[in-house]
Amino acid sequence: MTAPLVEPAVLERVKGWRPYVEAKLGFRNHWYPAIFSRELAEGKPVEVTLLGESILVNRVDGVVRAIRNRCLHRGVRFSKRLECYKKGTITCWYHAFTYDWKDGRLVDIITNPSSSLIGKHHLRTYHAREAKGLVFLYVGDGAPPDLAADVPPGFLDEGRAIHGKRRIVKSNWRLGVENGFDASHIFIHKKSRLVSGNDIALPLGFAPTDPGKSTRPSIGAPGPIGLFDLLGESAIPVFEGTLEGEPVLEGHFGEKKVADNISIWLPGVLKVDPWPQEGMNQFEWYVPVDADTHIYLQTLGRMTSSEAEAAAFRREVDEKWMDLALDGFNDDDVWAREATEEFYGDRDRGWVEELLFETDIAIVEWRRLASRHNRGIQTQEHL
Amino acid sequence: MTAPLVEPAVLERVKGWRPYVEAKLGFRNHWYPAIFSRELAEGKPVEVTLLGESILVNRVDGVVRAIRNRCLHRGVRFSKRLECYKKGTITCWYHAFTYDWKDGRLVDIITNPSSSLIGKHHLRTYHAREAKGLVFLYVGDGAPPDLAADVPPGFLDEGRAIHGKRRIVKSNWRLGVENGFDASHIFIHKKSRLVSGNDIALPLGFAPTDPGKSTRPSIGAPGPIGLFDLLGESAIPVFEGTLEGEPVLEGHFGEKKVADNISIWLPGVLKVDPWPQEGMNQFEWYVPVDADTHIYLQTLGRMTSSEAEAAAFRREVDEKWMDLALDGFNDDDVWAREATEEFYGDRDRGWVEELLFETDIAIVEWRRLASRHNRGIQTQEHL
Amino acid sequence: MTAPLVEPAVLERVKGWRPYVEAKLGFRNHWYPAIFSRELAEGKPVEVTLLGESILVNRVDGVVRAIRNRCLHRGVRFSKRLECYKKGTITCWYHAFTYDWKDGRLVDIITNPSSSLIGKHHLRTYHAREAKGLVFLYVGDGAPPDLAADVPPGFLDEGRAIHGKRRIVKSNWRLGVENGFDASHIFIHKKSRLVSGNDIALPLGFAPTDPGKSTRPSIGAPGPIGLFDLLGESAIPVFEGTLEGEPVLEGHFGEKKVADNISIWLPGVLKVDPWPQEGMNQFEWYVPVDADTHIYLQTLGRMTSSEAEAAAFRREVDEKWMDLALDGFNDDDVWAREATEEFYGDRDRGWVEELLFETDIAIVEWRRLASRHNRGIQTQEHL
Repeated sequence: MTAPLVEPAVLERVKGWRPYVEAKLGFRNHWYPAIFSRELAEGKPVEVTLLGESILVNRVDGVVRAIRNRCLHRGVRFSKRLECYKKGTITCWYHAFTYDWKDGRLVDIITNPSSSLIGKHHLRTYHAREAKGLVFLYVGDGAPPDLAADVPPGFLDEGRAIHGKRRIVKSNWRLGVENGFDASHIFIHKKSRLVSGNDIALPLGFAPTDPGKSTRPSIGAPGPIGLFDLLGESAIPVFEGTLEGEPVLEGHFGEKKVADNISIWLPGVLKVDPWPQEGMNQFEWYVPVDADTHIYLQTLGRMTSSEAEAAAFRREVDEKWMDLALDGFNDDDVWAREATEEFYGDRDRGWVEELLFETDIAIVEWRRLASRHNRGIQTQEHL
Repeated sequence: MTAPLVEPAVLERVKGWRPYVEAKLGFRNHWYPAIFSRELAEGKPVEVTLLGESILVNRVDGVVRAIRNRCLHRGVRFSKRLECYKKGTITCWYHAFTYDWKDGRLVDIITNPSSSLIGKHHLRTYHAREAKGLVFLYVGDGAPPDLAADVPPGFLDEGRAIHGKRRIVKSNWRLGVENGFDASHIFIHKKSRLVSGNDIALPLGFAPTDPGKSTRPSIGAPGPIGLFDLLGESAIPVFEGTLEGEPVLEGHFGEKKVADNISIWLPGVLKVDPWPQEGMNQFEWYVPVDADTHIYLQTLGRMTSSEAEAAAFRREVDEKWMDLALDGFNDDDVWAREATEEFYGDRDRGWVEELLFETDIAIVEWRRLASRHNRGIQTQEHL
Repeated sequence: MTAPLVEPAVLERVKGWRPYVEAKLGFRNHWYPAIFSRELAEGKPVEVTLLGESILVNRVDGVVRAIRNRCLHRGVRFSKRLECYKKGTITCWYHAFTYDWKDGRLVDIITNPSSSLIGKHHLRTYHAREAKGLVFLYVGDGAPPDLAADVPPGFLDEGRAIHGKRRIVKSNWRLGVENGFDASHIFIHKKSRLVSGNDIALPLGFAPTDPGKSTRPSIGAPGPIGLFDLLGESAIPVFEGTLEGEPVLEGHFGEKKVADNISIWLPGVLKVDPWPQEGMNQFEWYVPVDADTHIYLQTLGRMTSSEAEAAAFRREVDEKWMDLALDGFNDDDVWAREATEEFYGDRDRGWVEELLFETDIAIVEWRRLASRHNRGIQTQEHL
């Protein structure tokens, strides 16, 4: 009697990327960044929800640990009232079932130390990795792949300093991906302070000349698997906006060329190179939270040759780019995604009622690639 | 898997007026007033929802135009951020798909002026008419009938000045109709300032003496189609309220006779004549918005012989009748409808659990007439 | 098409206490306290919802009367605007249908005194009893049993003064019962001011030594039917909390022994004896309101030999125990129940996903007893 996650009538009508439409809660068996390392202090658990799973993340002796945020006994959330009586364990506030952060084992029950359950049950745990100041969790089964298989090329490069922010966006994660990788969405940025203030060249859109050459996949093992947008080469940028032949609007004729190289990677992370200026990149993730929410995790990167340079970069991000780019410019994107949610979220009908145009070929290719190369579909919530 | 609009188990049990019960979202192929003309300025689109359809209304070169409020491309609402770069067109804020207000044609796409979609797709448009200071929209298919077929007799008469207000009421539209056309609902007005302050005769209710003569239909082509309440002739007004023979309450024994002539018209508009005093009428619409909301569009009318008289009438309405009648008196009606919504809105059970009494014969006749003579049933939302 | 009250897939998997899991809205044909006598003044009706039924309670000539809070005619709630024009009757605010409080008979219709419906229809009425300052209603069919069959032993004893409070808790009623009767839930009270301030002995939990002797049923006719918790005899209290052998927490080693004798009774009322100190008892009800709400009706009792003593007891409760026990101590219980609701309320999955441990044997026995001895299951709301 439980409502299906995706409308069956919609799934039947989707051709070419049905698995993608099914993945309303995201793709399983991938690495996702959940929070920044700086947000996780020793012994101060933080609750996050990824792909519909409520997870408690902690740092124990410096190492990140993650468990399911719900006691096996009566199903209450540990995060409702965090109690910890011995390092390395968490005790449920209700009946004192106590679990090991490392392996989730029920190691003791304070209210009944003689219980036969002790040692015989395990809470689900999640593999965790820290890299570039981010905490990644593996939401899946079995042994995880290398983290490198799930992040854009170059992200883990030695010397690349990374800094950024995260926020909750009220739209499905796919509307995040598709907004970011959609070349012609730049129309919404036409009045951006970032663009005008930094003399950036930004057209109003793109007229593809050879749609067959709009993208180039990158699917070699061991990954990551992704898709490059080649519209820069196979489309004419539209700087002069016309309606029925009359000019009505202009793009920004700036001196600075940016965003030459845009690519999208499984499980849902965009790389924009260079951005917002020469020598910098944006890497941004759209992490599924639940059916109509995603974490927008935005980072900027730059190659640095010392920790002092890296610290200076982080300061520059905090003082300049946070306001201009990650907030100002990307606020428009957040707004657009939330405005799109209504149509796709209303009984999933957007997936069959949409009317795509030439520039959307890159989105179509992404849907196909994601349908073919994902490692699994999250089919239900485990809140 | 989508929930049905009306509970099938309820529909099976309704005899005599099943189409009316199915018409939770209203009747298609009728004219409905959406807003007042004074609310629609040149080039300033206004969003309205009628029968579960989100519509954008605009005035272009003085003429009212109405289109579906949702871009064909990615389904976002134009009204989220209105953009217009050339008179007579609307441009979607997301990817600049641009439509003609007249026929809904996709006339251009600023972000890709070479798109093959241009000229080949149309947004749904709505026929519109202005009359008596109201903007009427035809929510239906094909060519609309004359406006005169969907408004009460006399409403369009030359010289009749019309003035009023509209508000959103949180009940299904049918509870609006039935509250207005229900003779014995006057019990809720027993303490009205309008009644006592204007020496109006208002009984507590009516005891029908000949239920077979309670109403008289008016169904001649080309319309309008409606029903007159004849209780004034076939019922005894109850001025002395009794309980088990003892007087407990009195109606208002005023000198002024009003509301002699009450009639209800498809698709859901009431005429009260005279009201609130000799020489004036009330015309009020209950326009379906969605399953549990309607627009209550209230107007008062008076015959005038010059624009100066008409202006004086509008001033009188604003200064006197707005407060006493359209607000004060009708506030009780709004309150009653909203209080009734719970029962009829809860799995539609009111339609089979209600216990009607003699005075409700007029409501029953209205349900039958509406079931037989409507031009179509709106079976789903197109938000 | 209406959603089932309890997930069928869950019911299929529940063994041993399926009727209890079905009783999401409570057990029919039992007496429940709804409000305190002091809350019900002559001629001032009070609305309560029990087992999903909206009921209007009144005091007429000193006697408690209860009727369904919804007019037969158009289904509106009387409580939206209470109107009464003759003692002993209630008149609906909409069309003046008037009912007798005693038997629910439609005795008159002010708006149409000649209606043929008069005298032929009845509103549902509820048997009512006042005892110990509480108003009890029988939510069921046919003749009710003695009130004594549905309250804990001793509650009605002559000379026992009773005083307390009630509040609305946002959890299903069964989570209230199970929190109260659950021996090891005392872990949540480990920092209670009531315990430390009154030198009460309170362990952290219990280690059952003979689970087969954890409870003793009391099922003799004519009732009440209930279950005693015998963990005090068949379990070792845990005063020293350990994790992997190391002490981490202590219970409260007070001088005062309380709560020796704990029992749960149909339809869902707990007796704790003595509590919060020698010579006093707590009797507390978890009265179903709807699927995720219950009335927590808390009372304290003491044997008294005069009205003056009883009055002094009530003052003592107001001045001391209200703050320390019924609020302070029990606030933790309310919080815990509401924190448990999410898991059991989410598609009823808690009932099959929970992992019970030895101390929960008393809860399991209660579920079995309630499944066997209840007088009926409330299967739908009548709001």
